[in-house]
Amino acid sequence: MNKKDNIVIIGAGLCGSLLALRLAQRGYKVEVYESRPDLRKVDISAGRSINLALSDRGLKALRLCGMEEKAKEICIPMYGRLMHDKAGNTFASNYSGREGEYINSISRGDLNAILLDEAEKHENVNIHFNSGCKKVDIENKVAHFKSYETGEKFKVKGDVIFGTDGAGSSLRKSYISERKFLFSYSQNYLNHGYKELEIPADDSGNHQISKGHLHIWPRGDFMLIALPNMDGSFTVTLFLSYDEGEYNFNNLTSTKKITAFFEKEFPDALTLIPNIKEEFANNPTGPLGTVKCSPWSYQKKTLLMGDAAHAIVPFYGQGMNASFEDVVVFDAILNQNLENWDAVFKAYEKVRKKDTDAIADLAIDNFYEMRDHVANPLFKEKRKIEMDLEKHFSNQYFSKYSLVTFNEEIGYNEAMKRGRAQDKALLNLIADKNISTSLEMSKKELEIVLNKVKEETEKILKEDKIAGL
Amino acid sequence: MNKKDNIVIIGAGLCGSLLALRLAQRGYKVEVYESRPDLRKVDISAGRSINLALSDRGLKALRLCGMEEKAKEICIPMYGRLMHDKAGNTFASNYSGREGEYINSISRGDLNAILLDEAEKHENVNIHFNSGCKKVDIENKVAHFKSYETGEKFKVKGDVIFGTDGAGSSLRKSYISERKFLFSYSQNYLNHGYKELEIPADDSGNHQISKGHLHIWPRGDFMLIALPNMDGSFTVTLFLSYDEGEYNFNNLTSTKKITAFFEKEFPDALTLIPNIKEEFANNPTGPLGTVKCSPWSYQKKTLLMGDAAHAIVPFYGQGMNASFEDVVVFDAILNQNLENWDAVFKAYEKVRKKDTDAIADLAIDNFYEMRDHVANPLFKEKRKIEMDLEKHFSNQYFSKYSLVTFNEEIGYNEAMKRGRAQDKALLNLIADKNISTSLEMSKKELEIVLNKVKEETEKILKEDKIAGL
Repeated sequence: MNKKDNIVIIGAGLCGSLLALRLAQRGYKVEVYESRPDLRKVDISAGRSINLALSDRGLKALRLCGMEEKAKEICIPMYGRLMHDKAGNTFASNYSGREGEYINSISRGDLNAILLDEAEKHENVNIHFNSGCKKVDIENKVAHFKSYETGEKFKVKGDVIFGTDGAGSSLRKSYISERKFLFSYSQNYLNHGYKELEIPADDSGNHQISKGHLHIWPRGDFMLIALPNMDGSFTVTLFLSYDEGEYNFNNLTSTKKITAFFEKEFPDALTLIPNIKEEFANNPTGPLGTVKCSPWSYQKKTLLMGDAAHAIVPFYGQGMNASFEDVVVFDAILNQNLENWDAVFKAYEKVRKKDTDAIADLAIDNFYEMRDHVANPLFKEKRKIEMDLEKHFSNQYFSKYSLVTFNEEIGYNEAMKRGRAQDKALLNLIADKNISTSLEMSKKELEIVLNKVKEETEKILKEDKIAGL
Repeated sequence: MNKKDNIVIIGAGLCGSLLALRLAQRGYKVEVYESRPDLRKVDISAGRSINLALSDRGLKALRLCGMEEKAKEICIPMYGRLMHDKAGNTFASNYSGREGEYINSISRGDLNAILLDEAEKHENVNIHFNSGCKKVDIENKVAHFKSYETGEKFKVKGDVIFGTDGAGSSLRKSYISERKFLFSYSQNYLNHGYKELEIPADDSGNHQISKGHLHIWPRGDFMLIALPNMDGSFTVTLFLSYDEGEYNFNNLTSTKKITAFFEKEFPDALTLIPNIKEEFANNPTGPLGTVKCSPWSYQKKTLLMGDAAHAIVPFYGQGMNASFEDVVVFDAILNQNLENWDAVFKAYEKVRKKDTDAIADLAIDNFYEMRDHVANPLFKEKRKIEMDLEKHFSNQYFSKYSLVTFNEEIGYNEAMKRGRAQDKALLNLIADKNISTSLEMSKKELEIVLNKVKEETEKILKEDKIAGL
């Protein structure tokens, strides 16, 4: 924990560059190694999500590092979902009944670039691109790299090594292969994959559909979503099974079949994606996986952070936010002035792990919930009541989505427990007709609903606690 | 699915030898490869659990293969737990309130031996010992072995390959390393490990403590258990954290400290374990891990079964039973005469996976429940009521333990869902004083309790269902 410690960070993606910046601001000497070329000089977006949802937890982390304002300049606010049915009708559903609660579409590359720029302003930061980490000798704190410019192999010894090298983390793989300790590890794939497509800007450079929404074409077993970009385009993502159902990634092999699929299921979107044939054929199909592991650290030597420690599926829009929040939590642990890195790493995992496990589970929940939304009228009634409660009792009611997305002072685990109990309370109150679901409720009627939901939620939490859940 | 198919089974442990026997009985040609020497000729028990709990699910599988009676000859019935406190007092707790519901202590080696003997009676079975599987080329169905007798490497091509090679399965590792498909995989370790010790028979060859019980010395964060052997001895297992608490495996390094630990915590057991010093030093400390994965099969080529597909912690006494039940479920799928092995493998995983996931989770639950039993009076009251209900309403009430252990016609997943809901109902009814917990209830009073528990359980299941849980 000496400021002279030579800190090595593997990976200069979103988490790595924010971590480097924060450690530099705290006065540490940081060497960062990134396998890709410098994205400020080369376009390397292919195959990764082009834009992402940035919300309050991520913004809090950016604020900590003095980057919130710069990030906001490249943000496009999305106030809610806009659902598209097969007939081309649209239905808006706000993210919150409160004013000022919205999420933001932001370019992964642009955000990464401003973080790299800011980190590099610090003399105590060096960023080495085109340096792919092959393995880490965790005992001796030596990372082995290959230069993708010269082809040469080289080693770097650190006093501490951070692995912010993403879902396929090389440091994490070394934990498994070196077998120095019992490493709990899971990788779980959904049966669905994803593929990105594009809705270009119109001739004037404007967005062709509402840029204030996250667009969704929900179809039960598969769906299309679209997030706006600053240049007037939208990045569209198709989520579809690899091998189940009438249409799937494995059998959508001909242009004819792809077109037939879109004509049948997404006719309005099809007219907006002119290069669908080329894009469908050329853009990669990515898997949707969840990674959990423990311990994140090895003694006082190495630590996994961000996706390297906890990769999640994208259905809650929290992947980047969770990784950024890691930096906030880690920073708070550093403020405790513990005796050494081992104590810091252990304290960090102890407070953080339950929350990253929770957001992983919430993201999976949402994958199934998004399907149910289509088929299950209970969910729609629930959402309607929640909007009303948030609007009229804005200091008293927070939906699960709000707890997760807009309440950064509550951990994900707390948000999950309370949010799930609340959902269960609401769904059962509606199903048992114990609360009014009339479209126009007076504030007094709504207050009765609020109190019943609160009471039932507390009861559920209490009963779970007694059962040891 | 041709009877002429050359079937290769990797691993002749409990699951592999039962599977080989069953497939041979069905007329298949089976070649079995086992890395260890023939346990009927060499003592190779070191480092593995010497005895195990055999209960109704395992017995059903043995019955299917005509082996139930032979197995019963080497079984020692255990009718309940006998708890030992620090002062040496004992408290019995039956496994069921019904007559005839008990579990059995059985020697892993002896049971394995009678299965191997029976399998080898079939001309269409060959068992090759000392043949360690190094990897499997799953695409070409070629298993690579090393002979531990000659040191030679050799390959075996099968039409189908079964991996029943245990928690460290070589076939499963090949699924990971060959990367032919998206393989969901998890290994999760508890912070506790285990070590086996021995209570020898007395001078007359008799058991020194009750042989009709599974003995437990519960101490909250750690515990000792003992299961009887046919020769009058008991195999004792210490479950203890690797690195937490005052005493743990990492710091119990001196004879003095080990003795002090046992004198303080298990004084009555200490007097029964004469060779504790040597055994503690020489016997290995094993980890307690859970393995889940999916898919278990690769096309129509390979299939994982038993611990290779689903290793679990020992706290429900269901590890062997679950692996044996795999063979029952697989056999039932074979009866459906599906079109090919791929269809068989997929149908098998579809019905089986949810149940092996459930028993893995139940076994973890029990690890924590065993701790709570000591501290939590609610759990004791619950157990007392359950015994009474099972005794007086033996066709109407089945505790979670009974559902899992003695109701082999119900899958583990169903047993888990119903059992958890029932536990939650009972614990909350007791906590809220909604049912009588008096020691002496009339049958009529008990019937009121039964009906309240039933009603509350149904309510919990219904509410969970509405919430989509």
